[in-house]
Amino acid sequence: MHNQKRIRDYGVEIGTMKTGRLNAITDVEGVTVGQVTLKDGNMQTGVTAILPHQGDLFHDKLIASSHVINGFGKTMGTIQLAELGTLETPIVLTNTLNVGTAANAVIDYMLEKNPDIGNTTGTVNPVIGECNDMFLNDVRGRFVKEQDVRQALDNTAIEFDEGAVGAGRGMLCYSLKGGIGSASRIVELEQGTFTLGALVLSNFGMLSDLTINGKAIGKELKKNILQTHKEEDKGSVMVVIATDLPLSERQLNRILKRAVTGLSRTGSIITNGSGEIVLGFSTANKIPHQKPKQFLAIETIHEEDIDEAFRAVGEAVEEAVLNSLITAEAVVGRNGNERPALKDLLEKYALTLKNL
Amino acid sequence: MHNQKRIRDYGVEIGTMKTGRLNAITDVEGVTVGQVTLKDGNMQTGVTAILPHQGDLFHDKLIASSHVINGFGKTMGTIQLAELGTLETPIVLTNTLNVGTAANAVIDYMLEKNPDIGNTTGTVNPVIGECNDMFLNDVRGRFVKEQDVRQALDNTAIEFDEGAVGAGRGMLCYSLKGGIGSASRIVELEQGTFTLGALVLSNFGMLSDLTINGKAIGKELKKNILQTHKEEDKGSVMVVIATDLPLSERQLNRILKRAVTGLSRTGSIITNGSGEIVLGFSTANKIPHQKPKQFLAIETIHEEDIDEAFRAVGEAVEEAVLNSLITAEAVVGRNGNERPALKDLLEKYALTLKNL
Amino acid sequence: MHNQKRIRDYGVEIGTMKTGRLNAITDVEGVTVGQVTLKDGNMQTGVTAILPHQGDLFHDKLIASSHVINGFGKTMGTIQLAELGTLETPIVLTNTLNVGTAANAVIDYMLEKNPDIGNTTGTVNPVIGECNDMFLNDVRGRFVKEQDVRQALDNTAIEFDEGAVGAGRGMLCYSLKGGIGSASRIVELEQGTFTLGALVLSNFGMLSDLTINGKAIGKELKKNILQTHKEEDKGSVMVVIATDLPLSERQLNRILKRAVTGLSRTGSIITNGSGEIVLGFSTANKIPHQKPKQFLAIETIHEEDIDEAFRAVGEAVEEAVLNSLITAEAVVGRNGNERPALKDLLEKYALTLKNL
Amino acid sequence: MHNQKRIRDYGVEIGTMKTGRLNAITDVEGVTVGQVTLKDGNMQTGVTAILPHQGDLFHDKLIASSHVINGFGKTMGTIQLAELGTLETPIVLTNTLNVGTAANAVIDYMLEKNPDIGNTTGTVNPVIGECNDMFLNDVRGRFVKEQDVRQALDNTAIEFDEGAVGAGRGMLCYSLKGGIGSASRIVELEQGTFTLGALVLSNFGMLSDLTINGKAIGKELKKNILQTHKEEDKGSVMVVIATDLPLSERQLNRILKRAVTGLSRTGSIITNGSGEIVLGFSTANKIPHQKPKQFLAIETIHEEDIDEAFRAVGEAVEEAVLNSLITAEAVVGRNGNERPALKDLLEKYALTLKNL
Repeated sequence: MHNQKRIRDYGVEIGTMKTGRLNAITDVEGVTVGQVTLKDGNMQTGVTAILPHQGDLFHDKLIASSHVINGFGKTMGTIQLAELGTLETPIVLTNTLNVGTAANAVIDYMLEKNPDIGNTTGTVNPVIGECNDMFLNDVRGRFVKEQDVRQALDNTAIEFDEGAVGAGRGMLCYSLKGGIGSASRIVELEQGTFTLGALVLSNFGMLSDLTINGKAIGKELKKNILQTHKEEDKGSVMVVIATDLPLSERQLNRILKRAVTGLSRTGSIITNGSGEIVLGFSTANKIPHQKPKQFLAIETIHEEDIDEAFRAVGEAVEEAVLNSLITAEAVVGRNGNERPALKDLLEKYALTLKNL
Repeated sequence: MHNQKRIRDYGVEIGTMKTGRLNAITDVEGVTVGQVTLKDGNMQTGVTAILPHQGDLFHDKLIASSHVINGFGKTMGTIQLAELGTLETPIVLTNTLNVGTAANAVIDYMLEKNPDIGNTTGTVNPVIGECNDMFLNDVRGRFVKEQDVRQALDNTAIEFDEGAVGAGRGMLCYSLKGGIGSASRIVELEQGTFTLGALVLSNFGMLSDLTINGKAIGKELKKNILQTHKEEDKGSVMVVIATDLPLSERQLNRILKRAVTGLSRTGSIITNGSGEIVLGFSTANKIPHQKPKQFLAIETIHEEDIDEAFRAVGEAVEEAVLNSLITAEAVVGRNGNERPALKDLLEKYALTLKNL
Repeated sequence: MHNQKRIRDYGVEIGTMKTGRLNAITDVEGVTVGQVTLKDGNMQTGVTAILPHQGDLFHDKLIASSHVINGFGKTMGTIQLAELGTLETPIVLTNTLNVGTAANAVIDYMLEKNPDIGNTTGTVNPVIGECNDMFLNDVRGRFVKEQDVRQALDNTAIEFDEGAVGAGRGMLCYSLKGGIGSASRIVELEQGTFTLGALVLSNFGMLSDLTINGKAIGKELKKNILQTHKEEDKGSVMVVIATDLPLSERQLNRILKRAVTGLSRTGSIITNGSGEIVLGFSTANKIPHQKPKQFLAIETIHEEDIDEAFRAVGEAVEEAVLNSLITAEAVVGRNGNERPALKDLLEKYALTLKNL
Repeated sequence: MHNQKRIRDYGVEIGTMKTGRLNAITDVEGVTVGQVTLKDGNMQTGVTAILPHQGDLFHDKLIASSHVINGFGKTMGTIQLAELGTLETPIVLTNTLNVGTAANAVIDYMLEKNPDIGNTTGTVNPVIGECNDMFLNDVRGRFVKEQDVRQALDNTAIEFDEGAVGAGRGMLCYSLKGGIGSASRIVELEQGTFTLGALVLSNFGMLSDLTINGKAIGKELKKNILQTHKEEDKGSVMVVIATDLPLSERQLNRILKRAVTGLSRTGSIITNGSGEIVLGFSTANKIPHQKPKQFLAIETIHEEDIDEAFRAVGEAVEEAVLNSLITAEAVVGRNGNERPALKDLLEKYALTLKNL
């Protein structure tokens, strides 16, 4: 969004639905994103933090859910998400071996804001997602420190960078440079206009599978790239979905399950290695930590209105993945390993996405 | 309830919560039960039907859920229950090999009442549970006919028999005669007084494990029973939970998961053979089949109030199992196989449940 | 396979892997398919039966699993599949309101072949899948009779028809005529050559979403079709996967989860209505009904070899859907409702799949 | 085991199966336990580490599974356990807010032992369980440091303490002092003699529900205890199950699901607050990290032999909980909060478990 050239700027329009204002997860009111990027030689990693709303997250929880596409991952916090159907912290994404550190930082952050946690009320459930960036980043170095996570949490905004930034700094996508991408869609119902946004941390796919809007651009690129770069797919992606649609956790979960349609359309076969996990929340209902006098009244759509959200999530995830690819710059990292940028290859080989 | 002597009449009080008026699943307003018993030589089987409410089940669906304790069973309809979180038909229990017939009968019943099904709207999801009664009943005979199921559906009432009746006719429990049992508990919240009821089709357990209110009566009985009757446990039980507590499908599912505490306290180790499945619904919210103009507003308890329901379901299930045992009469069935009645054994060996 | 023109005959090659000899599920040794088609006015429905192997299914069970993509369906038998990890009957597909009848027929078939069931051993778990064919078929008529199912079971073969046949007779796909389709892929491992086959009962999708090998042919067709035919997607599909790869039920389940990549690539957004369910089995290990003296030794691949199967299942499912579309003939059914055939439209509008 | 008086020493025999030599999880060959206890004023917490075998855990993985009884918890690592069916690290238990620190310590430990992790092969999945000890421990203090976890990992043994030690230092059970407890059972099959062991971190239950071998001792104690001590149940327990039975991950999961029968028989109603999670592994098959030339051959029991394991897990868990209670000493901790020891109360009120 910060003057980066995104996939639509190349003439690629994914799907048929309208995008939100920024075409990003932050089009959902209240959602902000903060990132810290660590880049120096073998250190190519970082943190991406998502604040689900700007109020008191612990005391005004959001209905939330998760869906495991491929569980070869270390995401933390999903057991409670499933049991209680609520999110009570920011969501933090980082590299695989820094999940513990990110959890510690989120706990610190929550304890500081909520003196009652662990004192007069129970504890708190940090939600941390990860992908493995070991090709470009010395993941054993565990470079992300608690203060990095805190810095990301403390500096969130509506506009944020995509590509080789934050948790996406060291990630690969379709054997090119991947990372952070986002997109959004507008869902029009009789009751009003709603937004569904996606943010992905992309780290999956083999070049030969890359498909952009139905076009097999990966095969095209592969012909041009003389250097044989190893194509082993470690298959991980974190997907975060935000929406202001009023949903039950069951309905939200149904929506999260459709994220895979967007991934598939970019060419993914969902390989074995590493995890593919979808986390999502709806900002429409606040679930109070303290029991109120009255019963709760959870507003939800009728199931017959859910198809528009199913279409929206597929389109937003597909476009978010493409944005993560097209905005990413080339990175040279661990042991001199490098991954090229899609945008550079397009220019180098005079390929246009429009005419492919 | 029809003048049968139940476990409380023997001085056994399970748990600490108050029971409903009849101490049965039908204490939940709107719930009725109908049964057809088939008993003649090798035919010892039947049908038990539960109407979740007395209105238009298809167009005013109830929030519902299921929980599989042991999936070695053939219960039908739970996939849609999980996906949509709603029940739109009666629940019918019968023997394992008559599930198809029961499904056909429920479909007939629903088509008759709803000319729109399969015409101007979609189809319908019958929910059928089963246990295997092959020890006493020639299950290969598949004696239950569609008209038997229809008769059960058409003749439901608030009071109903327990023991060797309906679907319970041929079932065993702790190697004694088992079958249909029920119980209920009152849940007091600040917002009002609610009821949770259980109905079980009991068909599990080995005599030596039978425990009544903490007392190892099974071991006591076994000493007295000279005849070595084979104790192989086929381990199946259907549990149906009804409540008027306002619940989300997630909350209801959490409650259903606690049914196992009641089963365990009667001595069950949940053996391999046959299925143990819990079905449940809440009558508090009606989910309209047709999309209304407004969003839905689902009333639910706050999670902090759920413990009373957790206690209630354990107590009700435990007592329902004991009611199924103590009300059952001895049955001689297939190939002369027989199962004694607990009440007869207590009398024969001058055992009292009070002083054990 | 019976001289029908399939998608490859139009020059469309899905994916990169080799197909099996017939490019059908029956390329997996031992698998056969039988179908009965009922077509007369308002009756446009049928049965498709899959025999997983040619031996004693009940006593030599196969490792099996299922995966629910969308649970708005009535598929029967999956609870036991998940609990025990085995399949012990044929798989039968039919219309939604004939699931009970199909179950009864499968039970008959199994009882006849196995006098021990319900006599000296336990019962049997029929596995029945369905889609709703009510647009073209009077589903309330419940035309499928037990003898139709039996006829399908008794007349299975390696070669079988695709398109508007068997259970597929009344089904729609992308608002065109859909139905039965199949495809297969060869999986080459160091340990040998294996086959993975898919059979689909397609009944989902809106025309404007139809994508063939990345090409948005649905949009192209829509421009040409003047008649506004209603596009409401009821979103159901049954997918059956067979393989001779040695797999644990967990590994098989991982493979089944990837079926959705193939569906997505044909354009599916997995809409709300009706169910999308994947059933699968591996013929590599036979699990004996009777306990043997020794422990079982289950042969399985190492997880690192699973990616080829992931790719195979996506490709086979994508091609099976396209085969179901391209082989189907136009059908006029209930109330004169009609669905055109893709092949006819291609010809009518002089569209070629090659040059789109 | 270290001269602590356990529940059997009070004349209480749980169930009918034989115990292993030590009647502890470490009766399963290769399993060792290490603990660090932190006790000083407001700091009453610690670490309990379980090594599943004494070899190279990462390269010789064990078949493993988990089961969520109540997901209101923060256990880490279960997503991958479910997806791949293997355990590749020690299991570490600690307090809720130290899960991140424990994860970091386990990662350090694994990286040190395996220079290939994150270098030439992928990353590693630490499995960390927790309960909330905030009543006796200042959980906000997050006293457990990485070196404490490391010390526990580096000092495991076959004999270990129970009660108010390790991760159990600050835990409550039935409103008394709880903590670490263990027990084991011998499973006799035709193929040989096997062991199943349980270790619990108990932190659940209200005094009035406490039941010992069917006797309502909780109610008895409550009459005697004049001080009204708050009975709010936070309901958490971690259960770790080890066995040398050859099992598939599916079979192991079925066994883990039966842990709840043991918990229920001590009086648990599985309340809302905090998590109840079962983790388990079988040492019988080693799954190599590196792909071997041949297919794997996984040895498993036949399903008909699983009932003995079902009985064993219920008995072992029930006895492990009682051992955690009876061995625990009274602790005074945070803000002077205190929990009495069951053993002290029995003595004080001259209650014997034998004659109750």
